[in-house]
Amino acid sequence: MITSKSNPKVKLIRDLRNPRKRTENGLFFVEGIKLVGDSFSSKWKIESIIFSPELLRSTYGIETIEKARSARVEVVEVSKDVFQSISDKDGPQGIGAIVHLELSLLDKIASKCGVWVGLDSVQDAGNLGTIMRTVDSAGGRGVVLLGNCVDPFSPDAVRASMGAIFSIDLIHADIDSFLDWQREFQYLLIGSSDKGRIHYRSSSYAQDMILLMGSEQKGLNPALTDICSKIVAIPMRGSSDSLNLAVATGIILYEIMDQNEKSAEGGRV
Amino acid sequence: MITSKSNPKVKLIRDLRNPRKRTENGLFFVEGIKLVGDSFSSKWKIESIIFSPELLRSTYGIETIEKARSARVEVVEVSKDVFQSISDKDGPQGIGAIVHLELSLLDKIASKCGVWVGLDSVQDAGNLGTIMRTVDSAGGRGVVLLGNCVDPFSPDAVRASMGAIFSIDLIHADIDSFLDWQREFQYLLIGSSDKGRIHYRSSSYAQDMILLMGSEQKGLNPALTDICSKIVAIPMRGSSDSLNLAVATGIILYEIMDQNEKSAEGGRV
Repeated sequence: MITSKSNPKVKLIRDLRNPRKRTENGLFFVEGIKLVGDSFSSKWKIESIIFSPELLRSTYGIETIEKARSARVEVVEVSKDVFQSISDKDGPQGIGAIVHLELSLLDKIASKCGVWVGLDSVQDAGNLGTIMRTVDSAGGRGVVLLGNCVDPFSPDAVRASMGAIFSIDLIHADIDSFLDWQREFQYLLIGSSDKGRIHYRSSSYAQDMILLMGSEQKGLNPALTDICSKIVAIPMRGSSDSLNLAVATGIILYEIMDQNEKSAEGGRV
Repeated sequence: MITSKSNPKVKLIRDLRNPRKRTENGLFFVEGIKLVGDSFSSKWKIESIIFSPELLRSTYGIETIEKARSARVEVVEVSKDVFQSISDKDGPQGIGAIVHLELSLLDKIASKCGVWVGLDSVQDAGNLGTIMRTVDSAGGRGVVLLGNCVDPFSPDAVRASMGAIFSIDLIHADIDSFLDWQREFQYLLIGSSDKGRIHYRSSSYAQDMILLMGSEQKGLNPALTDICSKIVAIPMRGSSDSLNLAVATGIILYEIMDQNEKSAEGGRV
């Protein structure tokens, strides 16, 4: 059992709070029985499972440790003190995982059609995590991170995703590469903007498409607006001039998915 | 100009970070040009405007100060240091307002029909603020806070509302009073739960109703479920078993409002 906070593995986990260190190591850290369980039952590669026998009380958590051992994933026991030093929770559940991070390239979309959400320079980690959760719930394929987005592997984003980060695909591309890709591939792009002239419910969508959402502060980049087939808007009926980004994404995405479901079923009962 | 951090007004503002002190004083503090401007152009009563001439650079902010002076609202000048001591922002804009807090009683609903969102024991201030913003955007009347909800006047809730707190109505009631009120008034209540058997798009709604949403952890209280006319659910199509509360509220609320709009217009063009 590791009892020293300066142990290299323990130091690595603390380092992974830093975005640069996550990129350098190609790893991120997740904490808590649900997230560790979700990571373990996903296709993502687990580097190690870390736990404190003193803190871990959950049967599901203990089963996850056993599964990890049978699957020959490294399991590291640490003292309560050490676990508390790597945790960012008040009452830590005593289990965490170091996971290999994975960002796909745009060609993933070609091989895995469906509905994607493209985010232009999203800034808030909570919003990004909530959008991952929403895309998963709605039955979307994944999220395309365009331009200078907040890190999807930050603790706040992972936490807000409630595990959805492990079940959707994440793609990163700079705006220029995305423009090039789109020129060649001609995927259906529909944007959302408060300046859009089409009511989001009056638009028809498709089984294979990307819904493009702008950033919290600046909305959608004009270079992206230009390549959209159309721009839809959600009506604002009160004094507020916009919705929270994750809420707006949810409203349009469920409209898309409900239309797709209806056309697949030939009408809902 | 106040230069002392122990000035009673300055101390009051710091005290208002504490929920108990907000209730005791019947006041809350908002910060930033947008929120102060929104509070000032609303029906809410402003106790004082606080600003630092050194920090306040925005023309809109300076106009708000002038408007406050013409309306004989107390305007308090403080030094940069003092303002930074009351601010919870990194780069404060140098303007804030002390506002009289207002929570209406249930009878407000009778006099102001329309669509309301009822929240059962919502715990996250960011969620509550985002829901206020969503209710305003969707054209709802307000939010009914049921049971032990997080304080809507907390800095995080006010910030996430993006000023919507000043344009919607806020009602607070304990569960028992709400049950009594409903027994007498028979307002249409529709609940949302992952256990609901009605697809949220297959339900019809109404111009006057309350959409009841459960808490983040526990969902809807059975005592509330029992008095709902029906319980709707949003389909979960991926691995996630629920949506973020504010996203779920937005999706159902926009369905309600879109149905109401359609029936009022006799169909959308």
